[in-house]
Amino acid sequence: MATETCCTVEFRVQTSRKCQVVDITPLVEEAVKKSGVTDGLCAVYVAHTTAAVTVNENADPNIGEDILEALERLIPEGIWRHDQVDDNAAAHIKAALLGPSETIPVRNGKLQLGTWQAVLLFEFDGPRDRQLLVTLR
Amino acid sequence: MATETCCTVEFRVQTSRKCQVVDITPLVEEAVKKSGVTDGLCAVYVAHTTAAVTVNENADPNIGEDILEALERLIPEGIWRHDQVDDNAAAHIKAALLGPSETIPVRNGKLQLGTWQAVLLFEFDGPRDRQLLVTLR
Amino acid sequence: MATETCCTVEFRVQTSRKCQVVDITPLVEEAVKKSGVTDGLCAVYVAHTTAAVTVNENADPNIGEDILEALERLIPEGIWRHDQVDDNAAAHIKAALLGPSETIPVRNGKLQLGTWQAVLLFEFDGPRDRQLLVTLR
Repeated sequence: MATETCCTVEFRVQTSRKCQVVDITPLVEEAVKKSGVTDGLCAVYVAHTTAAVTVNENADPNIGEDILEALERLIPEGIWRHDQVDDNAAAHIKAALLGPSETIPVRNGKLQLGTWQAVLLFEFDGPRDRQLLVTLR
Repeated sequence: MATETCCTVEFRVQTSRKCQVVDITPLVEEAVKKSGVTDGLCAVYVAHTTAAVTVNENADPNIGEDILEALERLIPEGIWRHDQVDDNAAAHIKAALLGPSETIPVRNGKLQLGTWQAVLLFEFDGPRDRQLLVTLR
Repeated sequence: MATETCCTVEFRVQTSRKCQVVDITPLVEEAVKKSGVTDGLCAVYVAHTTAAVTVNENADPNIGEDILEALERLIPEGIWRHDQVDDNAAAHIKAALLGPSETIPVRNGKLQLGTWQAVLLFEFDGPRDRQLLVTLR
């Protein structure tokens, strides 16, 4: 009979460009190790409305750049209602399309990413200091 | 040694327009409180194929309107295979792009939304009565 | 006082076309049954960067075809940086837009899909052998 385990590890990422992809896989793997959870779920969450978390390849970092460019082509800047209040509506729309979180399985203490998968933070309105929460459950 | 805690709270939202954003944050926070779960995950799920759940800003409700408009520009109405059966293919495609669920951390009994984050129900084929499930784990 | 339950069931799906939708609901429901988890969360995860998992209707399989076509219209082939390395950048971008996972509530041993909801694997760079992980927690 095991005790209930839950652990949220918080970390911060400072971005340096307006639109940017940051590979946060090492930080998420560190949180898994720190938590002591061996089997369960790892939920990665960014607590902001103009940034997003997704899982994709980073072996070729151009993939992240391609995703940023695709979103720029789909969501032009400066034509939205919210731009009259704060000049970042496109960043909000892009963040909503990718979403703030991903949930990844953990087995035998290891994050079950596929061979080519990395956990990626997408910045759409940087440079900013971003808070991330990694919950092991 | 703690007992296992899991609780799914169900609620319904009546939408009033074809395309609409409803801020369901108060309902989700009520479910967290009701569950008694202090540390873990809160999964918000809409049990429909023409609605979606995401997290973004609602302090300026125009952001939701901008997201609806962006999806309307990207996914035109009436040109899809499914429109021959039921006139709502665009609603299905938009719902698939945003997805039916978001998973948010809970710490010390509180939903860990960032300062500007709200939990938003997106209606793409209303007005309808929508079922939402909030699972605390 | 219950013991902690967590179980990850692995299965593989062989796709047969470049772009394809596969209804994996029966496999996910089998994993729920196998796990013995009666109340909690079911996280469905595809361990690849050119495939995705989402929830939508499959009663009319044209909806899946419409989603594939919408993504093809939005993300053209062959114009991206990564295409110089490996000719599948569009597949990565589409996979990032839909995401690799969905989290669905389980109550009374049953996956809480709505009437029209199915769990769908999206293949964007097939035919390939895809690994799926279903975690019950």
